Amino acid sequence: MKESDPRPTLQIIGRIRSSLTNRKTAPKQEFEGGVEARIEIFQEFQPAMEGLAPGKEILLLTWMHLAGREYLRVHPRGDAKRPMRGVFATRSPDRPNPIGLHRTRIVAISDDGELTVTPLEALDMTPVVDIKPVINYPRDDRGKNPHGG
Amino acid sequence: MKESDPRPTLQIIGRIRSSLTNRKTAPKQEFEGGVEARIEIFQEFQPAMEGLAPGKEILLLTWMHLAGREYLRVHPRGDAKRPMRGVFATRSPDRPNPIGLHRTRIVAISDDGELTVTPLEALDMTPVVDIKPVINYPRDDRGKNPHGG
Repeated sequence: MKESDPRPTLQIIGRIRSSLTNRKTAPKQEFEGGVEARIEIFQEFQPAMEGLAPGKEILLLTWMHLAGREYLRVHPRGDAKRPMRGVFATRSPDRPNPIGLHRTRIVAISDDGELTVTPLEALDMTPVVDIKPVINYPRDDRGKNPHGG
Repeated sequence: MKESDPRPTLQIIGRIRSSLTNRKTAPKQEFEGGVEARIEIFQEFQPAMEGLAPGKEILLLTWMHLAGREYLRVHPRGDAKRPMRGVFATRSPDRPNPIGLHRTRIVAISDDGELTVTPLEALDMTPVVDIKPVINYPRDDRGKNPHGG
C-alpha cells in the first residue's frame, strides 16, 4: 500500500480572472451575487478538460490564497455579533486548508483553454486546484437534484 | 496583496476509519453502496469541530493518497470500453490534485473528536483535509435542495 505523504503538495492548474477583487466586499457564496468570470487553465493541464462543455455544471476547487490558515474558530460570516463557531461548521475561507468549493455553470470554452462560468464569487487571481463534474443522485427523496457534492 | 504560494502544502486534519479497504472493489460514489464509517479528527484540530452535530450533512474533503497524479485523461469508471475523457470531466481519483469530495451525514460525535458518518465510500486510512457544512440555495428553480457544493 502506498504510504500517505504527511504534507501533500498541491499543483496549481489555473487561475480565476474576475471583476471581484476585494475580499471584504465580494459575495460570500456564488448565489449571493456571484458574477460571470473566467478560469484560465494552464497549458499543461488542458488535456484534462476534454469532455467539459458549455451548459454543464461543475464544482470548482480553488486555493483561497488570502485566507488565514491558523484559525480554528471564527465569527460566522465575519459578524462579531454572532458567537464563535468551529471553522468546520462554517464556510469561512479561514481554515487549516483553505480549499474553496464553488458550484458554477460553464458558459463557454475557448480554444486556448479558458472557461467562462457563471455565477462565481471567487476573487480575481485565485489559484485553481481541481474541476469536477456535478453528479446527481440517480434517485433521492430530498429533491430533484440534491447532490452537489 | 499576499502572494500566492506556487506549491501550497496541505495539513492532514484527520483520517477515515472504514471497513472499505480495497480501491478496486469499493463503491465509486457514496450513493453506490457507501457504508457507515468513522472520521478521526486529530486533537489539535478538534476545536474547529464546534458546531457540528448529529443529523447535519457535511462535505468531507479527503486526500486520495492511493491515486495517480500524472493522469490527465482516463477511461470513465475504469472501464476500458468507454472512450477516454479528461479527468476534470470525471470523478476519477486519478487527477493532478486527488482531493476527494464526499457528501455524508453525521450520525454521532464522540467526546474524543470522532465523527461517525453515513454513507461514505472513502477507503480506510484516507487522510482528511477539510470538513464543510452543506449549504442549500435559499431559492432555486432546479429542485428543492439542489446545492451540495
